Amino acid sequence: MIRITLPDGSVKQYESSVTPMDVAKDISEGLARNVISASYNGETLEASTPLEVDGDLVLYTWNNPEGKKAFWHSSSHIMAQALEELYPGVKLTIGPAIENGFYYDVDFGEHNVSDKDFATIENKMLEIARGKHDFKLREVSKADALSFYRDQNNEFKVELIENLQDGDITFCDHSTFTDLCRGGHIPNTGIVKAVKVLSIAGAYWRGDENKPQLTRVYGISFPKQKELKEYLELLEEAKKRDHRRLGKQLELFTFSRKVGQGLPLWLPKGTALRHRLESFLKNAQQKAGYEMVITPHIGQKELYITSGHYAKYGEDSFQPIHTPKEDEEFLLKPMNCPHHCEIYNSRPWSYKELPKRYAEFGTVYRYEQSGELHGLTRVRGFTQDDAHIFCTHDQLDEEFKNVIDLVLYVFGSLGFENFTTQVSIRDPENPEKYIGEPENWDKAEQAIISAAEDKGLDYVIETGEAAFYGPKLDFMVKDALGREWQLGTIQVDYTLPERFDLTYKGSDNESHRPVMIHRAPFGSMERFVAILLEHTGGNFPLWLMPEQVIILTISEKYEKYAQKVLNLLENNEIRALIDNRNETMGKKIRDAEVTKIPYILVVGENEERDNKISVRQHGGENLGTISVEQFTEVVETEISKTLKKFKE
Amino acid sequence: MIRITLPDGSVKQYESSVTPMDVAKDISEGLARNVISASYNGETLEASTPLEVDGDLVLYTWNNPEGKKAFWHSSSHIMAQALEELYPGVKLTIGPAIENGFYYDVDFGEHNVSDKDFATIENKMLEIARGKHDFKLREVSKADALSFYRDQNNEFKVELIENLQDGDITFCDHSTFTDLCRGGHIPNTGIVKAVKVLSIAGAYWRGDENKPQLTRVYGISFPKQKELKEYLELLEEAKKRDHRRLGKQLELFTFSRKVGQGLPLWLPKGTALRHRLESFLKNAQQKAGYEMVITPHIGQKELYITSGHYAKYGEDSFQPIHTPKEDEEFLLKPMNCPHHCEIYNSRPWSYKELPKRYAEFGTVYRYEQSGELHGLTRVRGFTQDDAHIFCTHDQLDEEFKNVIDLVLYVFGSLGFENFTTQVSIRDPENPEKYIGEPENWDKAEQAIISAAEDKGLDYVIETGEAAFYGPKLDFMVKDALGREWQLGTIQVDYTLPERFDLTYKGSDNESHRPVMIHRAPFGSMERFVAILLEHTGGNFPLWLMPEQVIILTISEKYEKYAQKVLNLLENNEIRALIDNRNETMGKKIRDAEVTKIPYILVVGENEERDNKISVRQHGGENLGTISVEQFTEVVETEISKTLKKFKE
Repeated sequence: MIRITLPDGSVKQYESSVTPMDVAKDISEGLARNVISASYNGETLEASTPLEVDGDLVLYTWNNPEGKKAFWHSSSHIMAQALEELYPGVKLTIGPAIENGFYYDVDFGEHNVSDKDFATIENKMLEIARGKHDFKLREVSKADALSFYRDQNNEFKVELIENLQDGDITFCDHSTFTDLCRGGHIPNTGIVKAVKVLSIAGAYWRGDENKPQLTRVYGISFPKQKELKEYLELLEEAKKRDHRRLGKQLELFTFSRKVGQGLPLWLPKGTALRHRLESFLKNAQQKAGYEMVITPHIGQKELYITSGHYAKYGEDSFQPIHTPKEDEEFLLKPMNCPHHCEIYNSRPWSYKELPKRYAEFGTVYRYEQSGELHGLTRVRGFTQDDAHIFCTHDQLDEEFKNVIDLVLYVFGSLGFENFTTQVSIRDPENPEKYIGEPENWDKAEQAIISAAEDKGLDYVIETGEAAFYGPKLDFMVKDALGREWQLGTIQVDYTLPERFDLTYKGSDNESHRPVMIHRAPFGSMERFVAILLEHTGGNFPLWLMPEQVIILTISEKYEKYAQKVLNLLENNEIRALIDNRNETMGKKIRDAEVTKIPYILVVGENEERDNKISVRQHGGENLGTISVEQFTEVVETEISKTLKKFKE
Repeated sequence: MIRITLPDGSVKQYESSVTPMDVAKDISEGLARNVISASYNGETLEASTPLEVDGDLVLYTWNNPEGKKAFWHSSSHIMAQALEELYPGVKLTIGPAIENGFYYDVDFGEHNVSDKDFATIENKMLEIARGKHDFKLREVSKADALSFYRDQNNEFKVELIENLQDGDITFCDHSTFTDLCRGGHIPNTGIVKAVKVLSIAGAYWRGDENKPQLTRVYGISFPKQKELKEYLELLEEAKKRDHRRLGKQLELFTFSRKVGQGLPLWLPKGTALRHRLESFLKNAQQKAGYEMVITPHIGQKELYITSGHYAKYGEDSFQPIHTPKEDEEFLLKPMNCPHHCEIYNSRPWSYKELPKRYAEFGTVYRYEQSGELHGLTRVRGFTQDDAHIFCTHDQLDEEFKNVIDLVLYVFGSLGFENFTTQVSIRDPENPEKYIGEPENWDKAEQAIISAAEDKGLDYVIETGEAAFYGPKLDFMVKDALGREWQLGTIQVDYTLPERFDLTYKGSDNESHRPVMIHRAPFGSMERFVAILLEHTGGNFPLWLMPEQVIILTISEKYEKYAQKVLNLLENNEIRALIDNRNETMGKKIRDAEVTKIPYILVVGENEERDNKISVRQHGGENLGTISVEQFTEVVETEISKTLKKFKE
């Protein structure tokens, strides 16, 4: 008999060689139908693997990330079989599950495969799946494994096996297909009900451009046809909302080869949007007692030696800037904190004057390899909505909570309703990764967890995810398409105050060390705007839209009335413009729809006579013909739904 | 007989050997009394030098810079004589006139000289001056000159003479004193009526720290006692208004050794001031049709090769930033124009869409040697209130005039009433100093002069002062102390549009090259704030003051009433704060005066009873006890005196 502990802590006794699936059936038939994978004592295995020792069992369904991984990994076996059957002589290499789906890198040899063949591959995969073939893992000797692939002339698998230890090698069989595999499969192919080959791309064997070029076939699969359909719709929608595409369409930002990759140029409309976001945060920060500062974009190397950034990141960063004379060395600033520490240090402080909260929209530069760059989400230069709070130990809890309030205010005003948080603490097994004293780390980690508790946040604790200088609280928002993005961050830091020898005079007249909080609700303006674009598809909250209203004249005769309406709107702080072009109303409306201006007002003979406007919402809904005063109320009501005052 | 041409073009004939003073007397006795120096055929000489050939004569009085130079140069001879008489054995080296006064570098040997001795030196100088000794220049052979100084054991003068050509050496005698000298003196010592020894400092012989250390004695002199008095008052006032001192006192900015020299850190109050200035200009720019953009602080080296900046400044600039991989090279941006050109180039333009006016508060970095750095006026990183206008040739004149309007609006709103302008054109004798086609230069220079004419500006044309890429119009303001500062600049550029291949489609459907205007009314935020500080002594125009009003409570009992007053003021957009400390009214008023807050309101029993406030202006004037409404009007009237709306 062995003792099996389940995630809820309950312990069950079974005969040795019981399988996870047996345990699932013992719990309920319903559960058993959904179980597709399992882990035992932390190791992923098949639901059919016999368990021989006492241990902790977790059963996975499609709804667990681990379940999806087993599902997609198994699907890549099915795709491999389909490819072998359709393209005789194809050489398989590796085929892992990825975040969304799976791929297989193959050498098609003489065959030419293109997207025209995707349907054929999908049909063959579904045919195999419908056979409900069990996935069966078996041990194989190194000699037998090598001989199997040598017979197939597959030098790639042979190379893989040559690097494995005899005794550690397993094959997985299903149907007539066998693959070198470490395991982690679903019970049988029948669970896979829907498949899609997504794309093909070139890939080098082992990622080395000096090695043979292979073809990477990307696919995805689901247990229900409906889920595939939804996924493809999501993919289509995501493509439409791609911030790079919308940024171009709405003329928000651009890149220049000559200026350099990953260095965004903000166009006038994007700059107006960004300034509006910055003003919004500035206003809230002012109420929350922050003071703004401005610091340079470079600092002497010595500054970053003091801060520890140079030792940690120096080699992987933009390299030092030398001067033509005097032999000085400067670095592009990767963070604003060292500069803010020097501002704090520019005069002595009393405990009565703390906390000091220095805020700056500080542009920082960090080297990323060009292959890693992506639109505004992964750049080489970005502006943090940064602030550093210098406070006493007694003030830390309250300050941390105040920052959480500010972050929640920002998310609420921008329509991110759906978010979770992560408390990132250090990995106690790798203390060398962090700078600073363990007892300070303990205190800081405790302060964050207590603030998260107190504010009722939905949080998880992630060990080993802390910054090298301190633990942090990160906010992950879910966008309209259900994708997760890391946004704001709040970090406690006991280390920089030590390194910069920051002090204040306490009520005991002695010198003390302040605590520092780093925080950025948006994270970076670039990344935030990108996520906001993808979240809203460019239909920003009304208060944020650069242009809220466009007035279309039915003919040029009504320009004067349009101007009158415009003035009335501007008096009510509604941002509007007039389209008085000599074009058809249909064209004017279509053009207005592309710019995503939320309200389209039409003015012609009737409107002028009745002193009214015909109101149409972006997307088509007609609000009828109303007075400007009524319309102003509509706008104000709409704005007040998202934009509240901070700490009224 | 020789022919002498005077500056007004008139030609007079005189016997050869006539002196400039003779000519002056011939013109008028009054002029002759004031003439202290002259130049003949471009060479400075004594008023007593006989003229032997035909030539152009200019007579200098104290009111000419050349006259002042002769006056101060001669005064340094007088000081040298005084030092020789007071400190026997003192060794003289060199003693030139400088911008304000003169100095003499001397080796005092065994003597200890300090500021306690200044009065003695001054008295001795005045005693010599009163002797009305003529300055007489005479030629001397190299052998005699060397022997003269060898007898005095003056190795410094010996070294100077050894480097001179025999036949080129002159001595100047006055009273009992003789000095090696190239000439350029006033007629006699009696013209010097007032002297002041200002300071002493260490200086190395020939500026070389491996050579002997000398003592530099600074002095200044005037033809009237009253002028000295005024100068010393100005000096005292300038010291009080030194922006580095005020910047510290008002907590506007600081520097950090670790961040680096010449890299200002803006403290909260300075940042608020700067943001207010920026908002002011942003509002005016918006009305003038500018659009804001944001660009990164670095650019690929290629960008600056294209722009021509790299060829021109590369070696003397901050050196390129390398990447750890991919071997890219970036430069800190020294100017914003290349980035704005790339924004213009991000899409095609039609003539109907021009002009495009891109504005950015763009921070740029330029290397200066540490010895050249000075507070905020000479820094290594500064923020330009930059904009670039891309327009057609036909639009250039009007655009240039519009920019002049904007600059005049800025100066008017900030209390710079007194300014001149300079049109800087190229030096036609050194065409290799400039990039671009001569015919484009001609056109641009003409456009600037015509705009300056049209706007009725007080302008001078300076040949050879143009930027390397184009001619410009610079604005020089006179501050409250009469000192001149270069502020705003407007530059026409036909070169960058060529280099960046900028185009627009004309009404003829052909591709054309736009013209570019660079402009910055403030110049740089750092320099402008420095000059504004020195101009106003920190008493900024009311609209700009970070805090306009401070409310002092007579006792803590009146805090509630003070708060009511504060709310009323804030409703009228007046920035106020309360000092409710438990301190004497005298101390509160003194503290308020230091911060230069323009209005001090006192509230106590009487004020609360009558619902009024007692108003006191910064500097002491009492405005009596009035209602908040009346006070609001006072503030609004005061603001409207300087801050007008742009293009109302």
